[in-house]
Amino acid sequence: MNATIKDVARESGFSIATVSRVLNNANASYSSKTAKKIKKVAQSLGYHKNNIAANLVKRTSTTIAVIINSVKTNFSFEILSGIQEEANKNHYSVIILYAGNRSDNLTKQAIETAIDRSVSGILLVAMQLNQENTEMLRDANIPYLFVSTHPNNPLEKFVSSDNHLITQTAVNYLIKMGHKKIGLVGIDQHTTGKERLAGYKKQMLANNLSINNEFVQYGDYSYESGQKIIEKIGPLIKNGDLTAVIAASDMIGAGLIKGAKKEKIKVPDDLSIVSIDGTYICEITSSELSSITQDFRQIGSLSVETLLKKKNSKFVPIKLIKRKSVKNLM
Amino acid sequence: MNATIKDVARESGFSIATVSRVLNNANASYSSKTAKKIKKVAQSLGYHKNNIAANLVKRTSTTIAVIINSVKTNFSFEILSGIQEEANKNHYSVIILYAGNRSDNLTKQAIETAIDRSVSGILLVAMQLNQENTEMLRDANIPYLFVSTHPNNPLEKFVSSDNHLITQTAVNYLIKMGHKKIGLVGIDQHTTGKERLAGYKKQMLANNLSINNEFVQYGDYSYESGQKIIEKIGPLIKNGDLTAVIAASDMIGAGLIKGAKKEKIKVPDDLSIVSIDGTYICEITSSELSSITQDFRQIGSLSVETLLKKKNSKFVPIKLIKRKSVKNLM
Repeated sequence: MNATIKDVARESGFSIATVSRVLNNANASYSSKTAKKIKKVAQSLGYHKNNIAANLVKRTSTTIAVIINSVKTNFSFEILSGIQEEANKNHYSVIILYAGNRSDNLTKQAIETAIDRSVSGILLVAMQLNQENTEMLRDANIPYLFVSTHPNNPLEKFVSSDNHLITQTAVNYLIKMGHKKIGLVGIDQHTTGKERLAGYKKQMLANNLSINNEFVQYGDYSYESGQKIIEKIGPLIKNGDLTAVIAASDMIGAGLIKGAKKEKIKVPDDLSIVSIDGTYICEITSSELSSITQDFRQIGSLSVETLLKKKNSKFVPIKLIKRKSVKNLM
Repeated sequence: MNATIKDVARESGFSIATVSRVLNNANASYSSKTAKKIKKVAQSLGYHKNNIAANLVKRTSTTIAVIINSVKTNFSFEILSGIQEEANKNHYSVIILYAGNRSDNLTKQAIETAIDRSVSGILLVAMQLNQENTEMLRDANIPYLFVSTHPNNPLEKFVSSDNHLITQTAVNYLIKMGHKKIGLVGIDQHTTGKERLAGYKKQMLANNLSINNEFVQYGDYSYESGQKIIEKIGPLIKNGDLTAVIAASDMIGAGLIKGAKKEKIKVPDDLSIVSIDGTYICEITSSELSSITQDFRQIGSLSVETLLKKKNSKFVPIKLIKRKSVKNLM
């Protein structure tokens, strides 16, 4: 059995990132003592980079690994369809690695599997990486990009919708419909949520609208989360202190509608809703959800093109689709 | 660059299945002339089974490949979660290969990729295989099983819900609620659809209920399909000749509700619906869908256990969840 970088890491007690740096003679910071130790372990385990690993690189030069998260949303299949379609066109095959629900450990495993199989590129769908996983990915020297998330670091490449623009567009639409008491609900506390919050705040301020503390509610983009949020903002709505909200996902929007029904809050008479995503969920809900629609299929297909042709990062256009969940106050 | 079975197949003009049989010295039908030709090509391309391939087998002995179809349903993520969870417990990693929407060609590619990477097992989620792909899979000598489909061939292993039982349970429930004019809509013409149709017919006959030709409508399990079906059965419903239907999926059920609204058909007053699957869609719809609920997470996790521990095929229990889409006529 031929040893892998993983084996060498386990046996030597060093991280995969460090082992990878040493065995690839990367220009990175490790002591000569560390290098010596690792090389010794690698030798004792029979690690042969130029034998198995190099052959693997050549064999698999037409495979893209897609690492996906199971966030509680429903759009991943659209993105995967787009990726698959574009990869096919370019005669690349795709393997998908599932990183569980925001688990750093499962994400690490997925990245290791991709590196270990020497894929030619990695797409990270709706993922956020911690420091360790980021370093491992960088050291692997395999092209990668973020899909449907806009990473903090400007050096990282991405294909995504523009989260600032999404909430700005939603606020503008609600203002045009006569709303002034507008909330943003269901966002997370990571990059995506922060950007959406920033866009919302900016546009509210630009229109001299004040933001009550309770106007912003956090969640996890899930249906359950949407239902819970109604309990918190119910009193505000009943008092007329909040007439409209932007839902951080269609699932949040669906949860809001369901929760509102229980609380005898009418959509859109008492509460107007614009949801973010615009998937089929918007049509299935009883009060058809107006939405800021993201083009997930294009996000998927553009991400492959960007990866393969080393194009620049890109925001994909969004669209406002008017359905029945917004009341016109004008 | 080391040649793969694929390369040998392309170069020699023989199928991957044949090349695999010859190079693995499998006990299968091929002429000595074929064998000679293939071996010659393999040699000329520098194909070394015992070098790369065998090493790969050892290296990847703890990876399961999951091949998924993008049928227009929404339950795959539940199954994948179950698979991932159980695989983690057993220290297996999972790679997912996406076979497009029922495309034999993409399915072939996915199987080839799995074989080429010498995974230790293959799970086929909601897939049906044509003859060629079945043979390729059998010849590869990698354990595999069908997940969430019950293959025709009794020799093939599976973990699934029992489609006969699903429609029988649904028919029984509707009969208990006083319905006699019961349809089955949105099924496909493949195994799953055929089994659901058989269960439905059996239970209707057992209760001396007749089946009008228009009681059975085909579709593709999608929301759009559900909406279209209402156009066909609308007149029957309005005449009172059909009072209840079993929807072949939650998405069909959601489409029926939407279509019914357009046609001014009231659910459940004019039309009772029981849907098959029981995912979150049932709660999101305006008239909460009663459903025959499948345990997709358990289907996923049991499939890994069955694959790894070579257990027998298994039907996973289903549950009837009563919500608001069925009118009591008793």
